[in-house]
Amino acid sequence: MRIVDTFARVREERRGVVALVPTMGYLHEGHTACVAAARRRADMVVMSVFVNPLQFDRPDDLARYPRDLDRDVAIAADAGADVFFAPSADEVYSTESLTRVQVTVVSAGMEGAHRPGHFDGVATVVAKLFAGTQPHLACFGRKDAQQLALVRRMAADLSFPVEIVDVPTVREEDGLALSSRNVFLADRAAALGLSRGLFAAAAAAAEGERSATALETVVAIEVAERGGDLAYVTLADTATAQPIPSLDRPAFLAVAARVGEVRLIDNVFLYPDGSADLGTRLDHQSVLYEGRER
Amino acid sequence: MRIVDTFARVREERRGVVALVPTMGYLHEGHTACVAAARRRADMVVMSVFVNPLQFDRPDDLARYPRDLDRDVAIAADAGADVFFAPSADEVYSTESLTRVQVTVVSAGMEGAHRPGHFDGVATVVAKLFAGTQPHLACFGRKDAQQLALVRRMAADLSFPVEIVDVPTVREEDGLALSSRNVFLADRAAALGLSRGLFAAAAAAAEGERSATALETVVAIEVAERGGDLAYVTLADTATAQPIPSLDRPAFLAVAARVGEVRLIDNVFLYPDGSADLGTRLDHQSVLYEGRER
Repeated sequence: MRIVDTFARVREERRGVVALVPTMGYLHEGHTACVAAARRRADMVVMSVFVNPLQFDRPDDLARYPRDLDRDVAIAADAGADVFFAPSADEVYSTESLTRVQVTVVSAGMEGAHRPGHFDGVATVVAKLFAGTQPHLACFGRKDAQQLALVRRMAADLSFPVEIVDVPTVREEDGLALSSRNVFLADRAAALGLSRGLFAAAAAAAEGERSATALETVVAIEVAERGGDLAYVTLADTATAQPIPSLDRPAFLAVAARVGEVRLIDNVFLYPDGSADLGTRLDHQSVLYEGRER
Repeated sequence: MRIVDTFARVREERRGVVALVPTMGYLHEGHTACVAAARRRADMVVMSVFVNPLQFDRPDDLARYPRDLDRDVAIAADAGADVFFAPSADEVYSTESLTRVQVTVVSAGMEGAHRPGHFDGVATVVAKLFAGTQPHLACFGRKDAQQLALVRRMAADLSFPVEIVDVPTVREEDGLALSSRNVFLADRAAALGLSRGLFAAAAAAAEGERSATALETVVAIEVAERGGDLAYVTLADTATAQPIPSLDRPAFLAVAARVGEVRLIDNVFLYPDGSADLGTRLDHQSVLYEGRER
């Protein structure tokens, strides 16, 4: 695995079909699942690690976002990445960037409503990664379902010749969706309210429930009963991330809640035929917990 | 010359160093000067012709913008373009585009202030052309000096590996800057107020004048005396397009005025040492007047 820190060096390494796996580092099996998906489709897999200041609405959240580049390098190499691209903030924003990429509609609700400017930051940095590394495909996790919809729309609207590959959410054995933020979790039982609520809603959908309100209520109750502080729970169109009143098209049921000091998001993908993508489960503890108490 | 109508076909034609010359068609020697500049630097020259609805603030202006694709094909082939890319509006905006690229600061004044949304439209379509055609370099005329600054900044901010090549303004024998809109001009004498004013200001700068107000006043008086209706005249930094109070760095002196029904813009590039780029002059009548009364 080559370690590079400029866009120019990434382009020099290009050969064959190039896949990009953009991350903010502090890697876990959700990221390595993206590398594996990329590996199956591409000759060369570029993993980028960059904690993008533009997409943080709160400075304290940016400051405490977990970082460990040596650990990331080891995990990326082990996962089979060919190029590890860790640009400095200078390489990414050498002068003050005056350019913003905005995607309306898709960015309006849920995370966009709760984190002002977040999706402008995401769209801008992903456009920049696509422009600077020129991949043929790019892998994003379904865990960030609204981000996935936004990136798909941005790539299509700007005619980037980049196929967007989505990868199911990876979960701990107990169902908790992997997130770099999980290392800060104190109240595990409360955190499980999100996934348990979503699984219960998916079970209700499998039994015929189609009402968004009914499905959302199942999640809201489970989160509240376990002590989480719900921010939103929304059934949304997978393509537009717009709320929908009933499960009459491919959708994701997304939830955000605060559990102690940690803000968590999770979702399941639901389909009108009653089927669902709940993500995949690890049969072992995540690398997030190596060398630390869970 | 190959004529193609999709981004995918442009990419299939790519070989060696690729130059893009983006235009809105109704070609003239200003555009063919860009092709010549591209030709000197590239193995393949792609000329795009697309009247971009996003950059028109007024529907009537969009409706009456001159179009003649057969004429454009003949001129592009004669100029030495290898690929003529005329996407349909459907190819460019197959679904309603939700994505906008915005460049602040550079877009704030002059054309940006007078044509709301204009530069968002320019930045968005140029980002799309860069993303979809992946050129190594792209040529833009100095005639649109603020647009040139905006495109340079957008390309750098989004890490597009595209060198921006600028080409001096091409003028008629009498000094009028070439513009597709010139075919609508009724009052030629009034139209010449812009270039005459700019040349007089450049002469003043050569003799030592450095005050923006003094240089701008020279232009304003000439435009008014010849019957033009001045919109603005501004001395601006070439990199940021911000107004500057004195000629202490590379700058352009830009003017916009209405002459009868036609809105014209023009500029000269001025330097602190007193030198200037006034553009180049044709020694024959422009192709704009072939088959029509001037």
